[in-house]
Amino acid sequence: MTTLIFGHQNPDTDAVTSAMSWAEFQRQSGNTDVEAVALGSLNDETKFALDFFKQAAPRVIDAANGADVMLVDHNEAQQSVADRADSTILTVVDHHRFANFETAAPLFIRAEPVGSTNSIIYEMFQEKGFTISAQLAGLMLSGIVSDTLLLKSPTTTDLERKILPELAKIAGIDLEDYGLKMLKAGTNLAAKSDLDITQGDAKSFDMGGKTVRIGQVNVVDLEEIYARQADIEANLKAEAEKNGYDLFLLVATDILNSNSTGLAFGEGKDKLEAAFNAKFDANGRLALPGVVSRKKQVVPPLQAAFEA
Amino acid sequence: MTTLIFGHQNPDTDAVTSAMSWAEFQRQSGNTDVEAVALGSLNDETKFALDFFKQAAPRVIDAANGADVMLVDHNEAQQSVADRADSTILTVVDHHRFANFETAAPLFIRAEPVGSTNSIIYEMFQEKGFTISAQLAGLMLSGIVSDTLLLKSPTTTDLERKILPELAKIAGIDLEDYGLKMLKAGTNLAAKSDLDITQGDAKSFDMGGKTVRIGQVNVVDLEEIYARQADIEANLKAEAEKNGYDLFLLVATDILNSNSTGLAFGEGKDKLEAAFNAKFDANGRLALPGVVSRKKQVVPPLQAAFEA
Repeated sequence: MTTLIFGHQNPDTDAVTSAMSWAEFQRQSGNTDVEAVALGSLNDETKFALDFFKQAAPRVIDAANGADVMLVDHNEAQQSVADRADSTILTVVDHHRFANFETAAPLFIRAEPVGSTNSIIYEMFQEKGFTISAQLAGLMLSGIVSDTLLLKSPTTTDLERKILPELAKIAGIDLEDYGLKMLKAGTNLAAKSDLDITQGDAKSFDMGGKTVRIGQVNVVDLEEIYARQADIEANLKAEAEKNGYDLFLLVATDILNSNSTGLAFGEGKDKLEAAFNAKFDANGRLALPGVVSRKKQVVPPLQAAFEA
Repeated sequence: MTTLIFGHQNPDTDAVTSAMSWAEFQRQSGNTDVEAVALGSLNDETKFALDFFKQAAPRVIDAANGADVMLVDHNEAQQSVADRADSTILTVVDHHRFANFETAAPLFIRAEPVGSTNSIIYEMFQEKGFTISAQLAGLMLSGIVSDTLLLKSPTTTDLERKILPELAKIAGIDLEDYGLKMLKAGTNLAAKSDLDITQGDAKSFDMGGKTVRIGQVNVVDLEEIYARQADIEANLKAEAEKNGYDLFLLVATDILNSNSTGLAFGEGKDKLEAAFNAKFDANGRLALPGVVSRKKQVVPPLQAAFEA
């Protein structure tokens, strides 16, 4: 049975393209019976990248049906394929914390605290002397641009600053020009339903026994979010009640100015205020100046507040 | 505070020497404030290796006291330092399954399903072009010889078959001659108490909700074990009752003929018989022909039997 390679649910550009680059790494390693797939439909940013580099979108699956699997860009069970317990995990390449991860047998893992999963895979291509086509370089670059907001996010490391120009050269593109176009393609709020906005990039976290759901949406102007705030908040409430989230936080991120605003529904809004040492204003908005990274700037302080 | 590097409790030769080789890797990477330590006293095999290559034994610790830590040759909490929850795990290099492992932040992990942790570290020295002294090569070789029983264990992979001769050349020794001497040094039963035999290399596993303790002792003649069987079985019983093990299995391995015999105390002896499709004989011995690897040949079938 073909080995399936995939990133996390609600796939973002790094999740989708790192599955594709890891599939190519496997092929060049001699494992040809692999397929990059996605655990959910692609967002507009990812579609822009695939269109630009003329690559077909990976097939979307909701179960592995016992196939062997290779995980990229995630390791936690609740972010993975629903029937993962029935599969053998052969490899993991990831740049997130490890939790809710257990295997019966030894496996291959490569994890590094860097800006994107594609950064790690690029290192491995170099270590092995494998070749990277212009198209694949473009996809890997897109994943890195997405995760680091074009090197502006505090999740950016020296590795991304070094390799992003190298990938741009292989891809034959202007990094700044392409990167900004790709990020903007993901911010077309008019094309997004309220549900797309709240759940499109959301992940669940266990914090002190509570289920905390955190979504993030990139915009070029926070006013676009404020104009739809009532509908978005109604959706946060509906989704939290339907899915049993104790808290549902949406982080709307202004990618041009590197600031965010939080909207939230559920218990623990006091934890949010404690975590960020700020108050929800009269409009129910929590200003998060300088915050652009969920992983680095939202999850750790919120986890600490819930577990205090 | 100095970063502490250590392998699992009841350290074997790969656990001790991979901590030392990872410390050297860190130093050559520019992280000089690191110390290789051990979570328990060294066994006779490890002492032989350190003496042979004129290296001082690492300090033994029973707590990290909040220091940052780097794990080698293990990842599961119950096999690690008791106060690990108070430390930040910076790196893991391991060749075991992953379980009972969780971090708050992204970290560096390099895991591969190969024969020893030193095999992975050797690969990384080569990738970085770092230098390996004759003494360090001897220690790394000792860890690999120990874990693979001089390439005879089914845990051996092509990687060990490739690199062990390379390390022997750097160390300036005859691999077969040194390897057999080192393995035999670890089999001096006359110097071991009953407790050394049962617990010296034992690890705990959670199997279907039961705490299963599995020890392993290498011998050159199984008759040495049989001559002390009554005392060893009394010790298995005493240790199981004292520490709350549901089952305590001792695997005595004949390293010259690559066979083992199991002795056990506790509930689930029927699970053992089911796992190995064999019966305890009238002397309470479970013949395990061809079995030399706890990780590859004992844990997986036993886990399956407990979870059936």
